[in-house]
Amino acid sequence: MENTLTIESPQNPRVKTAVRLRKGKLRKETDRTLVEGYREILRASESKWEFIELYFCPELYLDPNADQLVSNIHNSGTPVFQCSEAAFRKMSYRNTPDGLMALSPLVGKSLNELDLPEKPLLLIAENLEKPGNLGTILRTADATGVDAIIVCGNKTDINNPNVIRASIGTLFFMPVAVASTEETLQWLGEQGIQTLAALPDAEQEYTHADMRGGIAIVVGSEDEGLTQNWINGSDFHVKIPMRGKNDSLNVATASAVLLYEALRQRQNLS
Amino acid sequence: MENTLTIESPQNPRVKTAVRLRKGKLRKETDRTLVEGYREILRASESKWEFIELYFCPELYLDPNADQLVSNIHNSGTPVFQCSEAAFRKMSYRNTPDGLMALSPLVGKSLNELDLPEKPLLLIAENLEKPGNLGTILRTADATGVDAIIVCGNKTDINNPNVIRASIGTLFFMPVAVASTEETLQWLGEQGIQTLAALPDAEQEYTHADMRGGIAIVVGSEDEGLTQNWINGSDFHVKIPMRGKNDSLNVATASAVLLYEALRQRQNLS
Repeated sequence: MENTLTIESPQNPRVKTAVRLRKGKLRKETDRTLVEGYREILRASESKWEFIELYFCPELYLDPNADQLVSNIHNSGTPVFQCSEAAFRKMSYRNTPDGLMALSPLVGKSLNELDLPEKPLLLIAENLEKPGNLGTILRTADATGVDAIIVCGNKTDINNPNVIRASIGTLFFMPVAVASTEETLQWLGEQGIQTLAALPDAEQEYTHADMRGGIAIVVGSEDEGLTQNWINGSDFHVKIPMRGKNDSLNVATASAVLLYEALRQRQNLS
Repeated sequence: MENTLTIESPQNPRVKTAVRLRKGKLRKETDRTLVEGYREILRASESKWEFIELYFCPELYLDPNADQLVSNIHNSGTPVFQCSEAAFRKMSYRNTPDGLMALSPLVGKSLNELDLPEKPLLLIAENLEKPGNLGTILRTADATGVDAIIVCGNKTDINNPNVIRASIGTLFFMPVAVASTEETLQWLGEQGIQTLAALPDAEQEYTHADMRGGIAIVVGSEDEGLTQNWINGSDFHVKIPMRGKNDSLNVATASAVLLYEALRQRQNLS
């Protein structure tokens, strides 16, 4: 490739910036995050996501098409930097880096930037803390035709590289908004979208709730569940049956059960 | 407590054994595993699970009822050992140990030890490798009234302490059998239990399959899906709709979608 820049030293300022971007605070301050891995960068690239810079290290490639992906991104006008193995390993946050990493603008729109169809299906995730859970939920939301995800609460950082990874890049093509609970409740009201919250002591089973209209399914944090704001602000409370000894489901499991029930009902509609 | 033994030194043979039990090979050879954490040990104790020995370290307790739990287990006849903080930390496989650990016989029955009702609902998990996924699936199986889980394939070790943890102790009260694929297929045939496998290219949607009889839902490994033995050996192939760009769901998500659909159908039955 022509015009390829190189990064030899692990002391290079770009390497240092990459290391610092592991901290959420610096991501917010600089409006930047890191995306690592062939699958994730490919997904973003397919979705016309514009990276700021791309870093690559052929010695570490694991995918036979890595070189092609770098060329495509380079040809689209993104500066690319070939890194020494030492420099790349220092930037990487994986045990087994695959030689691809990108500097990216932050993901996440405002509520008013969401472009929704009539009777949308939304998922609202409040204060989810585990990247694996949020990533799994993003994949499920994609699979069930969710029109947008809204992330509420300070505890969730969708720009954590581990969230991007766990979502296998789904963040780059799903509409995801970040907003406060208050804003979101007001906005949902204005849009005429009803909210459905799963609570252990609800009377109605989730399969008996009508999810065929414009509806937002709300799930809460792993440890504490939904905050009172969402419990009070929701139009419907439903329960997911628990037939055994445990009193809770994994939050990604609960999301999947509700979203697939919504899809089942909405498919029967058409 | 009377008759409490103590472990002071991190060089104590019991500490060394605990460290060695992190390796699956030693767990198999010795027929022993470790269970760490208040919640997990409480669950096992509530289910009358018999530990071989209990190790505790009051300096590290995080739960106000930890002392009571140790007394109960001691009173049931299990030898208990009070550990120095240094010794306990060396045994622990957690970042934040909570001062409770037990030496336990291995979990897992043979197929013929399973005591099933008429028309049972079973879950078969083949070659699952990630403890978090298997633990989540165990919790979902409990919640959906699954009668037994059968674990097949060499890649899964249900006695990995991280599986026990991710299941929050569900392993101690759910019937779980470990068997080869060949044995399991033969046994299912003898029992008249039909098998249902989710495959991306199946024609029938999962909501259209009749899950009201004796049925085993089969899910495969995270990376490779089901082996050909299970694909060929299954009575029904169903697909879970994928409306977005991704071509797969997390295996714990897929399990939850299928199990809650089974529960929905079986509830309507009664």
